[in-house]
Amino acid sequence: MDIQNFKKLNPSPRTLMGPGPSDIHPRVLQALAAPTLGHMDPEFIALMDEIKQLLQELFRTRNEMTFAVSATGSAGMECCMVNVIERGDRVVIAQNGVFGGRMADIALRLGAELVLVEAPFGEIIPPIAVKEALGGKPAKLVGVVHAETSTGVRQPIEEIAGYARDVGALTMVDCVTSLGGIDVDLDGWGVDLAYSGTQKCLSCPPGLSPVSFSERAVDVLRNRKSKVVSWYLDVTMLLNYWGGERAYHHTAPINMLYGLREALLIFFEEGREAVFARHRLNHKALAAGLDAMGLSLLPHVDYRLPQLNAIVIPDGVNDGAVRGALLNQYHIEIGGGLGSLKGKVWRVGLMGHAARRENVLVFLGALEALLTQQKAPIRTGVALSAAHEVFCEA
Amino acid sequence: MDIQNFKKLNPSPRTLMGPGPSDIHPRVLQALAAPTLGHMDPEFIALMDEIKQLLQELFRTRNEMTFAVSATGSAGMECCMVNVIERGDRVVIAQNGVFGGRMADIALRLGAELVLVEAPFGEIIPPIAVKEALGGKPAKLVGVVHAETSTGVRQPIEEIAGYARDVGALTMVDCVTSLGGIDVDLDGWGVDLAYSGTQKCLSCPPGLSPVSFSERAVDVLRNRKSKVVSWYLDVTMLLNYWGGERAYHHTAPINMLYGLREALLIFFEEGREAVFARHRLNHKALAAGLDAMGLSLLPHVDYRLPQLNAIVIPDGVNDGAVRGALLNQYHIEIGGGLGSLKGKVWRVGLMGHAARRENVLVFLGALEALLTQQKAPIRTGVALSAAHEVFCEA
Repeated sequence: MDIQNFKKLNPSPRTLMGPGPSDIHPRVLQALAAPTLGHMDPEFIALMDEIKQLLQELFRTRNEMTFAVSATGSAGMECCMVNVIERGDRVVIAQNGVFGGRMADIALRLGAELVLVEAPFGEIIPPIAVKEALGGKPAKLVGVVHAETSTGVRQPIEEIAGYARDVGALTMVDCVTSLGGIDVDLDGWGVDLAYSGTQKCLSCPPGLSPVSFSERAVDVLRNRKSKVVSWYLDVTMLLNYWGGERAYHHTAPINMLYGLREALLIFFEEGREAVFARHRLNHKALAAGLDAMGLSLLPHVDYRLPQLNAIVIPDGVNDGAVRGALLNQYHIEIGGGLGSLKGKVWRVGLMGHAARRENVLVFLGALEALLTQQKAPIRTGVALSAAHEVFCEA
Repeated sequence: MDIQNFKKLNPSPRTLMGPGPSDIHPRVLQALAAPTLGHMDPEFIALMDEIKQLLQELFRTRNEMTFAVSATGSAGMECCMVNVIERGDRVVIAQNGVFGGRMADIALRLGAELVLVEAPFGEIIPPIAVKEALGGKPAKLVGVVHAETSTGVRQPIEEIAGYARDVGALTMVDCVTSLGGIDVDLDGWGVDLAYSGTQKCLSCPPGLSPVSFSERAVDVLRNRKSKVVSWYLDVTMLLNYWGGERAYHHTAPINMLYGLREALLIFFEEGREAVFARHRLNHKALAAGLDAMGLSLLPHVDYRLPQLNAIVIPDGVNDGAVRGALLNQYHIEIGGGLGSLKGKVWRVGLMGHAARRENVLVFLGALEALLTQQKAPIRTGVALSAAHEVFCEA
């Protein structure tokens, strides 16, 4: 190995409009480079307290056990599940996309008795279907995805949480793509376990997973018969570090936590409602532009996520060629379809710092040009004006 | 919550001479703030290939399965164990400090039949004791800590790996504090599983765990009867992302990986032997200064880690007061004792970028002043010269 062959780090600037990571706010990048403190330094402990407080506010919860898992969003999912599920527990998972499938996979690895409630990719899980699956019988956990990143579907949560509580089950919600982009109201909805990621609507690089455990979830954890199978994700020990005792567990990813704190400050400086309104507006403009072109979004209009737009790829269009040209010619990253939607949809994120008017316009312009080149049957010359009109009305 | 109460991020600059995180190289901090690429971007994939190659070189291995787990060092430990251990497997763990104890804890959570080989904190595990514990009977795994961060002991590995192989067991080595500070030679020693952290001798913030799996370890993984209990740490899936297929698994911590790559480049630019010699020299100077003062290091001279110095706290000295004054008055962080060594030792790291002459001198000077203030029975006025002499001889 010749070290001279390695070039200086020089990543191309991209506009990140895929399913995540999203565009990072420059202040967040700057925060990452701040001098590293020790993970037991009183100054750092004070920052952790602030992060906890900001996350409680963002999740809209008073849960004491609200903190950031030292790994990405999927580890947050695993953290929630591994702490409450024991072998033989009845677990109901609502699956209408890839991430519900991941929950089911983890439940099986933990030895749960899995009950799957399925809906086609692109549709919601009717809450009543969860009630029927529960069948009035006890269960440990009901798992559901608030914002299905694979389909762009926004799942109603509150009714499901009610059905779960009726049979004594905890409700776990995947908020990876929802937190910071649309309203998440853990205490209002009666959600017991929630996890998210930093690289979606918080506009922070990936590497942390904000999580929250309700008192009911903590009771379940405290009354386990068996030890939590994961040492790294054992919340009883993690809480000694994030909580009052500050006992050493593992070394927290200090600089990533600087970034998360900055991202949370940026969110609250703009203001919750203003952030959500910005996401809605940019989505509306994008949808208007796509509609003018003759393109459609996968989910029903009532259940669309503003921050994740699954565009149905027109027949005859080369998926990879369009995404490749967007990246190489216009430095715009969007996502392809996952699982059964591979080759069938594009996933366009308008998350956090990426939810900006200029991004909507440049994407629509580039897409129109590339589809025209591919002789796709679209209407041209109308998309940009349609989007612009939405912005003007705002 | 009033957002105006949150101050601008402004961490105090510290000299990090504890058990980790260590001082971060300024180039690494800068790399963290580089523009974020998508985790499937061809440019990022190319960086991952480079990181893999650099890690193979650092671990001295040809193992294909060499990569960075998207979490801190303890998750690397769990990753190695959860992928090869199944319920009922016989697992031999050598414990002479806190981190061997952590291995044992994880083994039990995974349902292993645990055989513990113990030695007092501060001593090595005699390799023959591992042979005796194996007793010629088959075992799945032998786990041992190369650099015990809780005691400063350097454990000889090669002989133990030989005994493990004799009974068909895999050898797993904790290289968290050794990698990048002293020689690690996985293939030369016959080690099958190794993990490390970024925040020790690599001078990178915490958040990633470099790991390596030998072909023998991969065979064990491929022939498992049960699924790996952790989805996040399942190497069969992780390797589809780090390997040829580049299948999406989870979103990699992109900016942290920028930092790790930069840290690895810095290591190889200075050169392996030069880095190790620098660690030895600074340790020698520190030890000379401590000895001149009349202070002693916990481990026997033959088994001392240059990068982690466990100083025996003199009787009557207030542990917390000294560490607090070092931090608050001189901005130097050192570590206290862990487990049974709490209050009995200080842990002084000279890791990576922290292993510098100026750090040795300022620490010795500050320690002498603080111990004098506490009326500890030390010789004064000789430590700095003793350290300086070592540097002059070099």
